[in-house]
Amino acid sequence: MRQSLQPSRSPADYDFVHRVRTRFAETDAMGIIHHAAYLPYLEEARVEYLRSIGHPYDVVRSGGVDVAVLEAAVQYRKPLRFDDEVDVSLGVGAVTRTTFQIAYLL
Amino acid sequence: MRQSLQPSRSPADYDFVHRVRTRFAETDAMGIIHHAAYLPYLEEARVEYLRSIGHPYDVVRSGGVDVAVLEAAVQYRKPLRFDDEVDVSLGVGAVTRTTFQIAYLL
Amino acid sequence: MRQSLQPSRSPADYDFVHRVRTRFAETDAMGIIHHAAYLPYLEEARVEYLRSIGHPYDVVRSGGVDVAVLEAAVQYRKPLRFDDEVDVSLGVGAVTRTTFQIAYLL
Amino acid sequence: MRQSLQPSRSPADYDFVHRVRTRFAETDAMGIIHHAAYLPYLEEARVEYLRSIGHPYDVVRSGGVDVAVLEAAVQYRKPLRFDDEVDVSLGVGAVTRTTFQIAYLL
Repeated sequence: MRQSLQPSRSPADYDFVHRVRTRFAETDAMGIIHHAAYLPYLEEARVEYLRSIGHPYDVVRSGGVDVAVLEAAVQYRKPLRFDDEVDVSLGVGAVTRTTFQIAYLL
Repeated sequence: MRQSLQPSRSPADYDFVHRVRTRFAETDAMGIIHHAAYLPYLEEARVEYLRSIGHPYDVVRSGGVDVAVLEAAVQYRKPLRFDDEVDVSLGVGAVTRTTFQIAYLL
Repeated sequence: MRQSLQPSRSPADYDFVHRVRTRFAETDAMGIIHHAAYLPYLEEARVEYLRSIGHPYDVVRSGGVDVAVLEAAVQYRKPLRFDDEVDVSLGVGAVTRTTFQIAYLL
Repeated sequence: MRQSLQPSRSPADYDFVHRVRTRFAETDAMGIIHHAAYLPYLEEARVEYLRSIGHPYDVVRSGGVDVAVLEAAVQYRKPLRFDDEVDVSLGVGAVTRTTFQIAYLL
């Protein structure tokens, strides 16, 4: 993997916070939020972050720029459960001419 | 709703059968397959049916025809669980110039 | 189907409103929100409605009551797109001793 | 991340292959398979692998063992599209007393 960003565990190190509430549809038979459901949480936080800095993602896209996800790496530290409200902290780093990395902390 | 087709409960009344296996990602905290996960099963069966009659859906789409779902109605008769294999029976009916209805039996 | 409730098209006829914002993960290759993604929106609205009347769903569930979806019927009147904010209106009706129906209007 | 396994790019290096076909519900408005949809593909391959070695996952679970995903890392090398059939190669490695890692190649 080319991923180089090491997400800090301190929320204070992040630029932006977006709160999500987990859905029942995202739970699994272990009674927790299924691990695949986190990537849409991160995406939702990313979209809100872009809006907050004046670059709504639909405007970005209608301008002809699609932002493809090249890599994703998640460490599941503790389970989320149904109806949990959780703050997704987000910080941008490791910017190159064609790529950037975003660190998230839940 | 404009839905008029009454799905038969007899598999023999259907034109086509497609088997799906449920995924763990589709379960929920009640330990059953989440009710929203059924619509992709029906869609998968529909795609296989179209392929079986010589109309692969990606060819249909690249020909400029998008088939939008106008209505969906599901009656959940008994729960599915993780790793269940289930036959989706499918039959087409109520065809008009611009719409058609498909009945499914799981 | 045993469904008897006819959802009104007038938001004023509903008891509760919950706003959702569509996610990019919920779009499909037709550029619209996939039809299966609506059921989690309705579920999210239902959970918020139960909270608003003092019956948070996780408390209901931990009390031993699971509310299973027996039927779902959706009429897709106009497509939703990525990043749309939409009000989900909700009203309860057709209550029996063991079942109830909820009408939604988006 | 504690992830140490480096997935080989040669299918011959893997123990098991499971074929999946992408669903329309898994596409997004960029016309490709959404990046979050890959994790259920990997999970489905994992379930089939466990079955192939005589440990069906539902039996494992009913024996009281839940296998939680602790980390997931994905590198998206080329986009998948609707209706693609793709072989998921799978190999187990880095086994400890309480954890193991699985490498996948699509």
